[in-house]
Amino acid sequence: MKKYINEKFPHFLHGGDYNPEQWINTKEIWDEDMRLMNLANCNEMTVGIFSWATIEPEEGVFDFSFLDEIIDKVYAAGGRVILATPSGARPRWLAEKYPEVLRVTEMGEKKKYGGRHNHCYTSPVYREKVRIINTKLAERYGKHPAVIAWHLSNEYGGVCYCPLCEAAFKKFVAKRYHNDINELNTQWWSTFWSHNYRSFDDVEFPSPLGEKSIHGLTLDFKRFTSYQTTDFMKSEIAAIKAVCPDLPVTTNMMGFYDTINYWEMGEELDIASWDSYPQWHSPNHETQIISTALCHDFYRSLKGRSYLLMESAPGLVNWHEYNKLKRPGVDRVNGLMAIAHGSDSVQYFQWRKSRGSSEKFHGAVVDHEGTENTRVFNEVKKTGATLKAIDEICGTGVVSRVAIVYDWENRWALQDAQGFQRREKKYTDTLRTYYKKLWSRGISVDITNLHRDLSKYDLVIAPMQYMVDEESISNIEAYVRNGGIFYTTYMLGMVNENDLCYLGGFPAKNLKDVFGIWNEEIDTLYPGETVKIVGADGKEYSAVDNCELIHARGAKVLAEYASEFYAGRPALTVNEYGKGKAYYQAFRDDGSVWADILDTLVSTLGLEEAIPTPLPNMVTAHIREDGENRYLFVENYSGTEISGLSLGKEWKDMESGEISNKVDLKDFDIKIFKNLL
Amino acid sequence: MKKYINEKFPHFLHGGDYNPEQWINTKEIWDEDMRLMNLANCNEMTVGIFSWATIEPEEGVFDFSFLDEIIDKVYAAGGRVILATPSGARPRWLAEKYPEVLRVTEMGEKKKYGGRHNHCYTSPVYREKVRIINTKLAERYGKHPAVIAWHLSNEYGGVCYCPLCEAAFKKFVAKRYHNDINELNTQWWSTFWSHNYRSFDDVEFPSPLGEKSIHGLTLDFKRFTSYQTTDFMKSEIAAIKAVCPDLPVTTNMMGFYDTINYWEMGEELDIASWDSYPQWHSPNHETQIISTALCHDFYRSLKGRSYLLMESAPGLVNWHEYNKLKRPGVDRVNGLMAIAHGSDSVQYFQWRKSRGSSEKFHGAVVDHEGTENTRVFNEVKKTGATLKAIDEICGTGVVSRVAIVYDWENRWALQDAQGFQRREKKYTDTLRTYYKKLWSRGISVDITNLHRDLSKYDLVIAPMQYMVDEESISNIEAYVRNGGIFYTTYMLGMVNENDLCYLGGFPAKNLKDVFGIWNEEIDTLYPGETVKIVGADGKEYSAVDNCELIHARGAKVLAEYASEFYAGRPALTVNEYGKGKAYYQAFRDDGSVWADILDTLVSTLGLEEAIPTPLPNMVTAHIREDGENRYLFVENYSGTEISGLSLGKEWKDMESGEISNKVDLKDFDIKIFKNLL
Amino acid sequence: MKKYINEKFPHFLHGGDYNPEQWINTKEIWDEDMRLMNLANCNEMTVGIFSWATIEPEEGVFDFSFLDEIIDKVYAAGGRVILATPSGARPRWLAEKYPEVLRVTEMGEKKKYGGRHNHCYTSPVYREKVRIINTKLAERYGKHPAVIAWHLSNEYGGVCYCPLCEAAFKKFVAKRYHNDINELNTQWWSTFWSHNYRSFDDVEFPSPLGEKSIHGLTLDFKRFTSYQTTDFMKSEIAAIKAVCPDLPVTTNMMGFYDTINYWEMGEELDIASWDSYPQWHSPNHETQIISTALCHDFYRSLKGRSYLLMESAPGLVNWHEYNKLKRPGVDRVNGLMAIAHGSDSVQYFQWRKSRGSSEKFHGAVVDHEGTENTRVFNEVKKTGATLKAIDEICGTGVVSRVAIVYDWENRWALQDAQGFQRREKKYTDTLRTYYKKLWSRGISVDITNLHRDLSKYDLVIAPMQYMVDEESISNIEAYVRNGGIFYTTYMLGMVNENDLCYLGGFPAKNLKDVFGIWNEEIDTLYPGETVKIVGADGKEYSAVDNCELIHARGAKVLAEYASEFYAGRPALTVNEYGKGKAYYQAFRDDGSVWADILDTLVSTLGLEEAIPTPLPNMVTAHIREDGENRYLFVENYSGTEISGLSLGKEWKDMESGEISNKVDLKDFDIKIFKNLL
Repeated sequence: MKKYINEKFPHFLHGGDYNPEQWINTKEIWDEDMRLMNLANCNEMTVGIFSWATIEPEEGVFDFSFLDEIIDKVYAAGGRVILATPSGARPRWLAEKYPEVLRVTEMGEKKKYGGRHNHCYTSPVYREKVRIINTKLAERYGKHPAVIAWHLSNEYGGVCYCPLCEAAFKKFVAKRYHNDINELNTQWWSTFWSHNYRSFDDVEFPSPLGEKSIHGLTLDFKRFTSYQTTDFMKSEIAAIKAVCPDLPVTTNMMGFYDTINYWEMGEELDIASWDSYPQWHSPNHETQIISTALCHDFYRSLKGRSYLLMESAPGLVNWHEYNKLKRPGVDRVNGLMAIAHGSDSVQYFQWRKSRGSSEKFHGAVVDHEGTENTRVFNEVKKTGATLKAIDEICGTGVVSRVAIVYDWENRWALQDAQGFQRREKKYTDTLRTYYKKLWSRGISVDITNLHRDLSKYDLVIAPMQYMVDEESISNIEAYVRNGGIFYTTYMLGMVNENDLCYLGGFPAKNLKDVFGIWNEEIDTLYPGETVKIVGADGKEYSAVDNCELIHARGAKVLAEYASEFYAGRPALTVNEYGKGKAYYQAFRDDGSVWADILDTLVSTLGLEEAIPTPLPNMVTAHIREDGENRYLFVENYSGTEISGLSLGKEWKDMESGEISNKVDLKDFDIKIFKNLL
Repeated sequence: MKKYINEKFPHFLHGGDYNPEQWINTKEIWDEDMRLMNLANCNEMTVGIFSWATIEPEEGVFDFSFLDEIIDKVYAAGGRVILATPSGARPRWLAEKYPEVLRVTEMGEKKKYGGRHNHCYTSPVYREKVRIINTKLAERYGKHPAVIAWHLSNEYGGVCYCPLCEAAFKKFVAKRYHNDINELNTQWWSTFWSHNYRSFDDVEFPSPLGEKSIHGLTLDFKRFTSYQTTDFMKSEIAAIKAVCPDLPVTTNMMGFYDTINYWEMGEELDIASWDSYPQWHSPNHETQIISTALCHDFYRSLKGRSYLLMESAPGLVNWHEYNKLKRPGVDRVNGLMAIAHGSDSVQYFQWRKSRGSSEKFHGAVVDHEGTENTRVFNEVKKTGATLKAIDEICGTGVVSRVAIVYDWENRWALQDAQGFQRREKKYTDTLRTYYKKLWSRGISVDITNLHRDLSKYDLVIAPMQYMVDEESISNIEAYVRNGGIFYTTYMLGMVNENDLCYLGGFPAKNLKDVFGIWNEEIDTLYPGETVKIVGADGKEYSAVDNCELIHARGAKVLAEYASEFYAGRPALTVNEYGKGKAYYQAFRDDGSVWADILDTLVSTLGLEEAIPTPLPNMVTAHIREDGENRYLFVENYSGTEISGLSLGKEWKDMESGEISNKVDLKDFDIKIFKNLL
Repeated sequence: MKKYINEKFPHFLHGGDYNPEQWINTKEIWDEDMRLMNLANCNEMTVGIFSWATIEPEEGVFDFSFLDEIIDKVYAAGGRVILATPSGARPRWLAEKYPEVLRVTEMGEKKKYGGRHNHCYTSPVYREKVRIINTKLAERYGKHPAVIAWHLSNEYGGVCYCPLCEAAFKKFVAKRYHNDINELNTQWWSTFWSHNYRSFDDVEFPSPLGEKSIHGLTLDFKRFTSYQTTDFMKSEIAAIKAVCPDLPVTTNMMGFYDTINYWEMGEELDIASWDSYPQWHSPNHETQIISTALCHDFYRSLKGRSYLLMESAPGLVNWHEYNKLKRPGVDRVNGLMAIAHGSDSVQYFQWRKSRGSSEKFHGAVVDHEGTENTRVFNEVKKTGATLKAIDEICGTGVVSRVAIVYDWENRWALQDAQGFQRREKKYTDTLRTYYKKLWSRGISVDITNLHRDLSKYDLVIAPMQYMVDEESISNIEAYVRNGGIFYTTYMLGMVNENDLCYLGGFPAKNLKDVFGIWNEEIDTLYPGETVKIVGADGKEYSAVDNCELIHARGAKVLAEYASEFYAGRPALTVNEYGKGKAYYQAFRDDGSVWADILDTLVSTLGLEEAIPTPLPNMVTAHIREDGENRYLFVENYSGTEISGLSLGKEWKDMESGEISNKVDLKDFDIKIFKNLL
């Protein structure tokens, strides 16, 4: 069964950010934009982001004429609108009259007016002013036939250290520790360095000028910032939903942005959406592609349904260190890759290039030159043509039997940990190593966390799961006991949810039984150092960075260290536990050992590969389906042309109409097939 | 016709900064200095820099006895004095009583007393106190026969963010935009991110704590800082000229110092002068030499006449990262290189080494050791001997038919641009690449800008001229129409003088016609990446960093891209326009393609090379002339001895008196010849 | 004659930091700790560090119950206690009620509560509160039979810029310059940049916001910080000694920590002790070992007697960039190396790992796992076994005929000097180069300074002694005149004790006669550049970084430069002066030239090598003795097994009891021998 972003417009969206208020004095451009929109095979405009100063030029004085006009124009031209709340940037009067809306830095410096995405999320005044404008917008446009969804603010983010936030933080912490200061003292281990808290009033921000040594504090402050950002967003949603409860809301998130736990934020949204800016053809080209694919899978998993690619760059961006042009075809493959993973849109930042200010050289569908006669415009047009050809895929979903755990709180705690390799723990990088092996085989993957239902998966991978609370421990235990395959690595289960070490040996509590091991010590290698590993079958691997000295206590040893003073000790183990199996990889490598284990698991578990053939390097395939039809996406990022790749069976090319069991792909090409009836 | 710094002393100056107030308690040293001055073939002392605390120890209490004595002593010993105004460093009472004179940092931190070159240029109090002391100095020494010029302050520079400066900045901006806030909003494109200004009162400094996204603001603040610094200098000049209008004024500038538009500052001076500290024999030795030569040409061009090398280091400096000794001969070549380019002095920082504080290890003519028995003293002495031998060259000029454009405002805007290679645009480096090819052939070059008269040149080179205002566009157009050769590169004409993009395609407006091209896109390469270029004659070049995708619209294609997806598209074009030719080089390279074009232009235009022979690498030659006589400087920086280099015709060596059509040069040697009558 | 830390406990101490207050709610762990202490062959616990909040939870409310109990428990289990004063970290009430105790940063930012080792050393309130708690502790535990020494605070350090400190600094400076502001102005050379001081009230901190150019100021502020820290420590000692004058006091110092002149601090202590955390098996493994040995020799020399290794890490630390496990045997060799150099203890940070906060992953004897069944616990146990076997060595000393000068003030001035290689002068690194050659031959070395008695040494080495006051000059002169061998290098004697250059040629004053040279200039090389040196015997050396152009004025030239423009000039000289000899090495090298000179000196002076055989690379030997017996330590850090190394004569292995004139050593092994009677 298909699920659409908005039932009233059951089509792929193709469009993006549009700032007509920048051209309010040259309105002939607005009409030209409508002409060009259709020419580019576009059907959507996201308007209202950063429009606050235009629609409320003075406090309480509203002027919606530009929005009235532009929304009507888009609709008249056959397009639809995603309407943004304007909270991403303040008008000047707001900062001037209510300085509390401006953030304070970690060093206690009051910010001045300027920039964007930098208001205090706690400020009651800011929340109230946003409530008023959001209500006005909802009242005015909530029933407009052009408007199909709400776009909340823009790229929520950042951290505020103002007194209002500090007061809110004290309350947050008090609630978390049940108003029991002894509980806080124990969990934060504050007796260390005589830092005992007498009451929750004593709680201050972590700060380079004050406390940085209490990891529980640091962690809770990260939690607070994420919580407060989400809470602000909830207040935005409340204003809108009070007026028009049926229009879906989304906000544009940013990959695995560190500051917000998107699992938490995602709870409040109807639709997930994100902004994707990979560095195509950069020196770390492959990593960029895999990372992007991983993010797509995360955003689909976040709401368990189709989502939006809210922003991407036509041509190039302007904020990478080196702003390379997108090569021919890359615009198309960049957009369709999103569709393959479950997106129901390909949207751009931005429709028309700004003439001035800091984004004037960011790629756009319409360049400063101003016509349809540019390479980039025509790349966009081609993507639009494909989207039209495959429009029936819109609303279908993706089914996965494999999941990878991504855990923001674990990442925060790990990164802050004093120990191992101090500066960089490489949590996300490591996770991508595991993901890549699945991607390379065309196996569909969900992203999940340890507080979600794992039982629907046959295989769960959770690398570097340093932090586990009691619930996570139970979840893992039950999952394996009931027949799941759980694959984890070094650093599992060292601390509880407050970054307090578990006593009695790692991994925590009965995880030692689940995995059948005890982890005594962890060695950290210098860059360039390696340790040899030998598998039971004699195959060699090479460990880098981290090697744990574990003891097998029931687990079967699949590989051993073969150099260093811990030669002969277990490096990879598997434990039969209940009906399931628990793998423990005690070292970091480039993914080779996992690839070999996966090879076995694919056949054991009968995991589906989108194409049942070994795929060339940097070629992958994905399937979308709705229970009735299946759609196959075959993607070539290899840098060379692929010809005659077997599809295993006959499919129908949705653009050419050809039926074949093989496919040819140019470099950076993607082809979309439908199953034969 | 010769033009002297001061007609009363028509000789090369040889001397430098002298701080006798540091030795006021051991005056025997003053007499020793006079003896040593003559011994070193020196004839000039620059005094009074940083003397304020000595001559005005308390507010309104003046004591000129030390200056009286030392100026008389110098004169009695046969020397002359350049007298400095003392505004480069405050006495303590001034900072204590009038804290407004102290700067505020970008972060709003009030500076404390200390350092130098760090007073607020806006402060009325500071201007008034400087006016008083300058007037006193002018009254007392303006007619002293020893004093031949004024040296204003010392190395003006830096930026102040105090409230006085902010108020002045608001006025500056209001004037610039004709008191029309709408004009400002349009030019700064402030609707972007809702940052509309309601009045000029809303204008604040760009700041990491506030606004950094509006490039028009950033650019205008740079303009303001340059303007205000110059305005402060003008107030210094006014005080002096009111008393003694005839003595020339100068200030020591610093190469292509970023913060001040020296074109603007130079307008106010009688004489240009600068401080030159190349890193001889460093790993980037050649670059240092070419850069220094380029600066010399700039300072000569600034006032269109001879200038002063106000500071250079005897022996070594103390503030390079590695402070290498100047090898034997380098002191001499360092000084005479300046003379070759049009300087009428070789001056040093400093005459006698300080015993303490931060410059105690900076090279000096007289070392801590205190006698004439040092290597460095004798190097200086030799330079002095040469200067005496060639003294008749003093006051002559340099004639150039080629000019390179150097534009501070373009540099500021380019460097701040979000896009391309973000961190470093390499404007000055690129310019030097073009300059080097002329220097290597001994072709005389002026430095100019697009608001100056170009008609006197046969060839103008303007790389990376990203910013062009209407006047510049007209100037280029007229220059080419009337027969000039204009050579430019990628990034030409993208923005107007407020960093606002031109619409309708780059380069701006009718520059598309002048150059016969349209620049659609610009590709940025990662370090290490190259793109192949092939010339019409089959010769290959290699592009780095930037490659524009241009369309020839009338221009003749001289070279094409031969790799990447834009293979086959134009890379170098020339357009016949009016009586002239307009070259457009769409990519960055190491200068090779320009060298080949130059080869053609030299013969087409009949450009004079100082020696009509191909010169060995890192050997060059320059000519000074006064309409009557010509003087040839042949300089060897090659690291090896050169023998038998043909001079094309017979010249007379001004030191040995020999007449020859050949020259032998030791490593780091320079020889000076006079034409035969 | 033996000298014990405390006559009441004439044994090696084996134990370390113990924080039972962190486990106050699970006291069963305290009993377990006592059991484990004995099991690990430990006999000492350092308690009370960071306990302030526990023993004085509110101002004036004391609760010593935990200390009472734990000290009794340790004693009952056969152990002894070193009791700490708690001043290393404040309780929260102290910071809240008396904000003056919190530091201010260099930028004027008031610190907030948090961290440790960060209180103002000037604050009268802090001193008073510390006096009260110290007095209470002394009264309560001063006579407890378990308590054998006082441990003052913890790792004193850091800098405060608060108004109280600034006032104290003004007084400090006034005293230093005899209340004569003219003396200050001369010594600081403040006329430079017009910075003349009118009175001592004008003196402010050096600051990035104010004055950074006056090196005399910077130097005196470093002196002040060191002085004030020591003065604070003296006030701690006074409180304790008033109650129990007989218990020895120590504090844990940190290698060659920059901020405190430990020569000065050491004066106030009964016993020296330090915290040692080398990076074993890191990429700069050898350097780490030599540095550690050098520090051990310093701490022995500081009080001229046995000292304590107060902290070292079992297993690993958590604050290195890469926290590698200590390989098997390294824990033992790390501890016994200290004993070899004269330590009477091997102590650890920490006994039991914290569960939370920033040191939770720092190595400990007892891990989170909590039992004796870990590798690290057993490594510690082995070290303890060896200590028991060699316990009779406790209290013996070390005799050296060679000394190396280490001078904090020289280091400060050198590092701050504007000149040479600006960022890094490499003073300590250079010194280690000289030390290593002695260490590699098993020659015992003291560390000294130029205000100490040199006459007891046959050979004194003082590299890079840039700063010398009159007393140092006299000391060197007298030492050489009376027959000493003095070996020094480039940069000798350039400035006086206020960083004011000596006039009349370097090295200062009659050092020119002592060394028979004049140093005219100093060349600084870029990284990678070398200059060739040739010895009188034709042997070649290679200079890096610094080459002085000296003139031999009586000295004999032992080596000359053989490349660069100073080829043929002296590079190494020796001068016969009085009954002694003065060597001057004008360049930096890798120690080769010094190794060759040492070779001669060993035979000339008859210097004793602990083993009269050439030692393999990274093998060394040390002797402890008490006038009656001699004990030989042979240490292998070579990375390979050593077998059959000749000991020169027969010795008795103190662990195995075997008598042999040869020794076999595993990698990272150490063996201890006693002389035969």
